[in-house]
Amino acid sequence: MFYHTKRLQYEAKPEQPDAVYAHKLQELIGGAWGEMTVTMQYLFQGWNCRIEGKYKDMIMDIATEEIGHVEMLSTMVARLLEGAPSDQTAKAVQDPALAAVVGGMDFQQAIVGGGGALPSDSNGYPWNGRYIIASGNLLADFRANLTAEAQGRLQTARLYHMTDDPGVKDMLKFNLARDTMHQNQWLAAIEELKKDGVEDTVVPDDLLDEEHREHASSLWHLSDGESSDQGGWAGGTAPDGNHEFQYNANPEPLGGMASAPKPEDHLYATYS
Amino acid sequence: MFYHTKRLQYEAKPEQPDAVYAHKLQELIGGAWGEMTVTMQYLFQGWNCRIEGKYKDMIMDIATEEIGHVEMLSTMVARLLEGAPSDQTAKAVQDPALAAVVGGMDFQQAIVGGGGALPSDSNGYPWNGRYIIASGNLLADFRANLTAEAQGRLQTARLYHMTDDPGVKDMLKFNLARDTMHQNQWLAAIEELKKDGVEDTVVPDDLLDEEHREHASSLWHLSDGESSDQGGWAGGTAPDGNHEFQYNANPEPLGGMASAPKPEDHLYATYS
Amino acid sequence: MFYHTKRLQYEAKPEQPDAVYAHKLQELIGGAWGEMTVTMQYLFQGWNCRIEGKYKDMIMDIATEEIGHVEMLSTMVARLLEGAPSDQTAKAVQDPALAAVVGGMDFQQAIVGGGGALPSDSNGYPWNGRYIIASGNLLADFRANLTAEAQGRLQTARLYHMTDDPGVKDMLKFNLARDTMHQNQWLAAIEELKKDGVEDTVVPDDLLDEEHREHASSLWHLSDGESSDQGGWAGGTAPDGNHEFQYNANPEPLGGMASAPKPEDHLYATYS
Amino acid sequence: MFYHTKRLQYEAKPEQPDAVYAHKLQELIGGAWGEMTVTMQYLFQGWNCRIEGKYKDMIMDIATEEIGHVEMLSTMVARLLEGAPSDQTAKAVQDPALAAVVGGMDFQQAIVGGGGALPSDSNGYPWNGRYIIASGNLLADFRANLTAEAQGRLQTARLYHMTDDPGVKDMLKFNLARDTMHQNQWLAAIEELKKDGVEDTVVPDDLLDEEHREHASSLWHLSDGESSDQGGWAGGTAPDGNHEFQYNANPEPLGGMASAPKPEDHLYATYS
Amino acid sequence: MFYHTKRLQYEAKPEQPDAVYAHKLQELIGGAWGEMTVTMQYLFQGWNCRIEGKYKDMIMDIATEEIGHVEMLSTMVARLLEGAPSDQTAKAVQDPALAAVVGGMDFQQAIVGGGGALPSDSNGYPWNGRYIIASGNLLADFRANLTAEAQGRLQTARLYHMTDDPGVKDMLKFNLARDTMHQNQWLAAIEELKKDGVEDTVVPDDLLDEEHREHASSLWHLSDGESSDQGGWAGGTAPDGNHEFQYNANPEPLGGMASAPKPEDHLYATYS
Amino acid sequence: MFYHTKRLQYEAKPEQPDAVYAHKLQELIGGAWGEMTVTMQYLFQGWNCRIEGKYKDMIMDIATEEIGHVEMLSTMVARLLEGAPSDQTAKAVQDPALAAVVGGMDFQQAIVGGGGALPSDSNGYPWNGRYIIASGNLLADFRANLTAEAQGRLQTARLYHMTDDPGVKDMLKFNLARDTMHQNQWLAAIEELKKDGVEDTVVPDDLLDEEHREHASSLWHLSDGESSDQGGWAGGTAPDGNHEFQYNANPEPLGGMASAPKPEDHLYATYS
Ligand SMILES: [Ca+2]
Ligand SMILES: [Ca+2]
Ligand SMILES: [Ca+2]
Ligand SMILES: [Ca+2]
Ligand SMILES: [Ca+2]
Ligand SMILES: [Ca+2]
Repeated sequence: MFYHTKRLQYEAKPEQPDAVYAHKLQELIGGAWGEMTVTMQYLFQGWNCRIEGKYKDMIMDIATEEIGHVEMLSTMVARLLEGAPSDQTAKAVQDPALAAVVGGMDFQQAIVGGGGALPSDSNGYPWNGRYIIASGNLLADFRANLTAEAQGRLQTARLYHMTDDPGVKDMLKFNLARDTMHQNQWLAAIEELKKDGVEDTVVPDDLLDEEHREHASSLWHLSDGESSDQGGWAGGTAPDGNHEFQYNANPEPLGGMASAPKPEDHLYATYS
Repeated sequence: MFYHTKRLQYEAKPEQPDAVYAHKLQELIGGAWGEMTVTMQYLFQGWNCRIEGKYKDMIMDIATEEIGHVEMLSTMVARLLEGAPSDQTAKAVQDPALAAVVGGMDFQQAIVGGGGALPSDSNGYPWNGRYIIASGNLLADFRANLTAEAQGRLQTARLYHMTDDPGVKDMLKFNLARDTMHQNQWLAAIEELKKDGVEDTVVPDDLLDEEHREHASSLWHLSDGESSDQGGWAGGTAPDGNHEFQYNANPEPLGGMASAPKPEDHLYATYS
Repeated sequence: MFYHTKRLQYEAKPEQPDAVYAHKLQELIGGAWGEMTVTMQYLFQGWNCRIEGKYKDMIMDIATEEIGHVEMLSTMVARLLEGAPSDQTAKAVQDPALAAVVGGMDFQQAIVGGGGALPSDSNGYPWNGRYIIASGNLLADFRANLTAEAQGRLQTARLYHMTDDPGVKDMLKFNLARDTMHQNQWLAAIEELKKDGVEDTVVPDDLLDEEHREHASSLWHLSDGESSDQGGWAGGTAPDGNHEFQYNANPEPLGGMASAPKPEDHLYATYS
Repeated sequence: MFYHTKRLQYEAKPEQPDAVYAHKLQELIGGAWGEMTVTMQYLFQGWNCRIEGKYKDMIMDIATEEIGHVEMLSTMVARLLEGAPSDQTAKAVQDPALAAVVGGMDFQQAIVGGGGALPSDSNGYPWNGRYIIASGNLLADFRANLTAEAQGRLQTARLYHMTDDPGVKDMLKFNLARDTMHQNQWLAAIEELKKDGVEDTVVPDDLLDEEHREHASSLWHLSDGESSDQGGWAGGTAPDGNHEFQYNANPEPLGGMASAPKPEDHLYATYS
Repeated sequence: MFYHTKRLQYEAKPEQPDAVYAHKLQELIGGAWGEMTVTMQYLFQGWNCRIEGKYKDMIMDIATEEIGHVEMLSTMVARLLEGAPSDQTAKAVQDPALAAVVGGMDFQQAIVGGGGALPSDSNGYPWNGRYIIASGNLLADFRANLTAEAQGRLQTARLYHMTDDPGVKDMLKFNLARDTMHQNQWLAAIEELKKDGVEDTVVPDDLLDEEHREHASSLWHLSDGESSDQGGWAGGTAPDGNHEFQYNANPEPLGGMASAPKPEDHLYATYS
Repeated sequence: MFYHTKRLQYEAKPEQPDAVYAHKLQELIGGAWGEMTVTMQYLFQGWNCRIEGKYKDMIMDIATEEIGHVEMLSTMVARLLEGAPSDQTAKAVQDPALAAVVGGMDFQQAIVGGGGALPSDSNGYPWNGRYIIASGNLLADFRANLTAEAQGRLQTARLYHMTDDPGVKDMLKFNLARDTMHQNQWLAAIEELKKDGVEDTVVPDDLLDEEHREHASSLWHLSDGESSDQGGWAGGTAPDGNHEFQYNANPEPLGGMASAPKPEDHLYATYS
């Protein structure tokens, strides 16, 4: 069960409205790597966690924090939209700066949201549940989380350079810092899983003997670039300590012809 | 530009048809973590790669391999569907095993695909482009790739236990092995990025001084689990070597009240 | 079965083309609350209506009208796009008004629609069937319809202020009026359901004794705003005449710990 | 900012696992009218609320409660999936009850979720942001909320009859009760908006003089059912007290021919 | 503007209910090639038609017919769902035929639709606007229409073999016949466009001199199948009468290296 | 299995960057009729082809070519985005040409793609698997392919007129030529199917006697346009040589009333 305080985790006050930036900021709310994603991903992971204690408790701590990030960004968007020229017709525009705004606004923020944030990304595409993963396997999921915080900080950093508003930048400095923390946090948690002996390097930590081991270590050179054999992935011991990388320089297919069986008559697949 | 050989990378021949399993296998074709995802993710990453040489060449090698994985799985699905009882009415079913098949088939594989595979997952939801990321930042993207191979091998391992067909299992042993290789490969590539000095631990490797450093290392304890301070993420040096983890046991909000500005009249937001 | 006349229900002639406004108007065609939604929602409700007579006949009257609203808006969009500068390159733009148009057009209206309307909203997202509800329960559905006409009139009113074209405004005055009528119509129909004794206040009109009655009237105060106890929802008799509102000022959870069971081995959920 | 307690708002313990019911329950989590919808709808409405005080505080109270409902249902689903026969092949099924389970399970709950809940509905379609509305106009949005609680209680009631598990039924009795409360709550809030004079009957409370008043009160009889003139919507004073309903028994179109203008050459629309 | 009669274009009465078949029939309502697609595709094409007269009038005739096909199929689905065992628990199933139904029903038809049809396909995926095309170019669009009627009849024929209910089969015999008619109709219309001289073989009928003519007639042999040169597409005069087919047996790329430019610093693409 | 060469099939070098055009070009990558569609459609058709030899080999030749078209367009987009003013704030814009760019850029190309192409269309909507068809029936599918190449060339021709960059135009001249070839190719293949006697005019070539033949040739005149009887589709022999077109000038419904059966109690459909 959850409780809410009306105060924001961190301040979200722009110095001035900026409707085009409000459009761009939608990416951090409803984009594939936005705050709705980490909110829902961490919540579902916490609820799906099968091992009680520190892992689950930590996941729920950060999940709960992320709801507040959606709140901060939505608040910022509404404030950036104050006085947005949504009722301005194009033909009346006489100023290039206004022209950029009239062309670059998110029309739905006005028509649908009444000047508020939307659960969508910067191209107006709605957030959806296929963005998240809660597989029950903590190593697989912590890697997903590390990715999310990395892509999230990358996008935040890009957006940091797209504004010069001190209020916006102040909030983004908080967001950047949290994303730094959270990258470190998931990296530490991945180490902890190994230290605790519950997961190892390869996900899942099983079937390593059943799988065709002769194919578990070779890079198939299927594109004619000249340099793919020059990386650490083409030779030496693999990170799992259990395989020696190999380079398959002239790969040939191992299987037979791709083909599909004779069709059932009632399906009318072409056959003769 | 691409070339194709009609031979499969590895054999994809079931011993017997199994329409329910053909339904489940769709997850590995068109699911969020399926072969269409890694195919398109690696292709777009290769095309978006801004640094010529070993990284780009390696990405294109594996991208090209993945197209062939979609081919293997689609071939397997068509063969598993041979003779599927798609024309069987429920009321005529007299056998529990057939009842399970009639209830558990993917109807679209017959009605739409004529007994072939679909670009959809095991719930019939189509693959879509928001599943992939090609950000141009190789560390962020390699983490995404490592995640994809981990989730992919996890799903493959689960599916391995859902069949006892030797032909299917033989192919999955190849897929499992490739996912092992590819997890090692991306782990090695992440190390190589650091070794080459082009990326570091935190993505992106910038704004670490501009961000609010005081918030870049603390876990906010916002859920009442008792154990989140017992992990390596709550104290000690963070993985980036640049921060000391801290535990914020009684977190208070730092911002002011969440609020939205007075609305423009023409938007008819409720105000008084 | 349906018949069509080529004349529009109401005239849809702009005085002048306006490509940016044609972009915005897409919301009323293919948006979640646009005319495609009410068309399909009312049609499916009519077909799903289990009580013959006045309700069903009225639903089919309005459903049939709404198809004509999609027609009016699509016609308006095509006319607003006449001569749109879709072939204008940005670098040749020398006028701010044109710049706003070049930046603010819906590119797909030209590239895909050849200057015609699309079945999409003002962010280019396609209309989809999850927007509509036809549950078979008329009270639940009439509330959905009332909502649709309210959101629809709200968006139309916002759009009314975003143009000064007399021809567009004339059509919107018709649309606004129909939305007024339709709000009144669904409100009247909701009253009629109660008057006829087929539905009451709470949907569905059942299980009111089975449900945990002690939890059917209390507002849980889970956010620290100070004023939620000052509304009519925090005390007194509830609108159904069957409950007394209560205010749970210091809510405590009633359930046990959230937890998930020990996982099956073959699913590889982390466990120790 | 939010806080979380690990205890559930209400207990969510099935007496026995039931994988088919776990599939059906997804509708209440990730369906268009499920708990993710009310969670996000109320949160975005609270953040988008432009009038401080009782309305906003009440919205945030209920928004915060709804996050906990997603938690309860996700917990219930994980427990219903305990020991689910996801590794059972169809051909080995010898019992009709098991056949129903093998055919009726949600395969993704095993393959993707590792035995946990998904952010999807009972057809495996992911929750998405277009399901919610936060328009800033409280009357329009409270009607949407009333609809959501009505459709939600309707679906819950249907699901109540699809199980005989006492533990599941006990939780649903709580959910039903909350949906009763919330329907009453939004009805009361709608009354309060009128009592406070901030909103009236028609949304928005404006342009009632500008719109074509002669078209604001007539039912167009466009389908040949005989009874649509027999309801309260076809005559008498409309609910807004401001119009007299009329019945347009033989409606003729008022506009001219539907047509699209001569196309631009470079768009290659067919013309002669 | 549209009118409606309550009588169906053709009878839609099953002899007996069949809930699994009601699930499958959804494909013809809300599938990519279902009746909602042809309804909306023809309506938008009619409204987007830039040449008055026989073409536009014919498009509107068939568009109007198609709305009635959605009506027939939705009526059929509701009747097939009469008495569906949606409240049956799996564990109580004792009969294989019932097991197939319980596993193979569309749960949303009960939970969401209350026993009615949904605007979704047979995998529960909602119909969406990206399924349709109304490009303004009649030849391109008539080819799309011919395709839709071909895929539609193919799916109807498959479904014809999936039932033995005389009532269902009777309706499908009407649907099959209309799809035969409509394939002939679009074929005739394509001929008429050429006969009238408004369109030719290649869409659009322009830029045939500007394009690189040397690449407008050769098949690039990029897959190692041995027989692609044995079809009429590999030699002789092309159907447009304007090109001679050629076979490029050993194709080499014509362009330079695929590469992306040096990135902007603020986008943090990896570079060294 | 596939191989890749780093050289492009044809050169993709713009003379100058143009960020607005890069936005528009997304349609040809990830649009419903873009290169991702033909790539995946032809691949799945090839894998689903049930008749070995020239048809299958030809499909795989062109499928493999299309992957390279996605590569060309993605490369072009990245190059067009070089130096794009994604970090430019609207208020600093002083030039109309720049205003058009700032308003008309695809923000996700910068924020998400780091200056690279996205698997989305020109409205930012992601490519998805429901765009493609691989039915197993070659005539139905070749018609879909002919449509795709026609719509694709139409969109390419429109885009050809939206730029004056010689490098872009040079690449589009290649694309136009390939689309010309591919239209001819599918037309020839359709003829070949008939010549080989494996398919005929109507899809599928069956049930022509079972269907209600009296309804297989008449145009139902359901819209009041005056000219729909003036086309070749209203009289004379139909293209299949098997029917005589008829014109149903005053069509009456043939079925009974549309109605839905009495609902099950537990579904709470309104009934009295
Ligand atoms: Ca965050
Ligand atoms: Ca793979
Ligand atoms: Ca309307
Ligand atoms: Ca709830
Ligand atoms: Ca039809
Ligand atoms: Ca192509």
